Amino acid sequence: MASIFTKIINGDIPCYKIAETEDFFAFLDINPNSKGHTLCIPKKEVDKIFDLDETTYIGLMSFSRTIAKAIEKAIPCKRVGVSVIGLEVPHVHVHLIPLHSMEDARFIQKAKVSSDEFVEIADAIKSYL
Amino acid sequence: MASIFTKIINGDIPCYKIAETEDFFAFLDINPNSKGHTLCIPKKEVDKIFDLDETTYIGLMSFSRTIAKAIEKAIPCKRVGVSVIGLEVPHVHVHLIPLHSMEDARFIQKAKVSSDEFVEIADAIKSYL
Repeated sequence: MASIFTKIINGDIPCYKIAETEDFFAFLDINPNSKGHTLCIPKKEVDKIFDLDETTYIGLMSFSRTIAKAIEKAIPCKRVGVSVIGLEVPHVHVHLIPLHSMEDARFIQKAKVSSDEFVEIADAIKSYL
Repeated sequence: MASIFTKIINGDIPCYKIAETEDFFAFLDINPNSKGHTLCIPKKEVDKIFDLDETTYIGLMSFSRTIAKAIEKAIPCKRVGVSVIGLEVPHVHVHLIPLHSMEDARFIQKAKVSSDEFVEIADAIKSYL
């Protein structure tokens, strides 16, 4: 069965899309640690990041860097942090999280973001791509 | 002033070393989230990961993948997670963390590891490199 992320890539589940290439896709995390929290994923449905073939892995990390640099310009923060955990959705996803304090990296406190704000945040990040 | 990690690279501060190349260095985190928690760093002292030049960034992520695959073989765990935060030490470091549950990714609970265990863990990981 297609993962929730494959359904997002295919447009079967809506998302606040940031970017798409032939192999990768970026969109806002709907339950963000902080405003601007973005997920970067390979279109290829693989569970664990280190099981990706080297080309796809390097491509994903390079794509994530491009997105992170846009987030850094669009979202006021100390820096953009990276997390890859993957215990919930079995489809590789790189969390890019605007960090204001260590709490933003813990996946405990969540930011409340309205639909209008999600659109504004996505537009702001996209404007730097 | 040299960062604590540059002092580790230079041998001025001891560490449980995992691997070293011309440009990168890996060693066990002395205050680990879980047993086998490893740090991968560039020898170049740069504060933020996305400020690394692209070649160094890709090199670091490729080096981290090699180390993570050895950790996965050496340390029983669900998978190896990745975190890059960097709010404390201003020298890029990729955390590779053997994950058993989400708690291992939060940097709140810490594992107690004796000196002998650190040596055993480092030897186990190195045996898969």
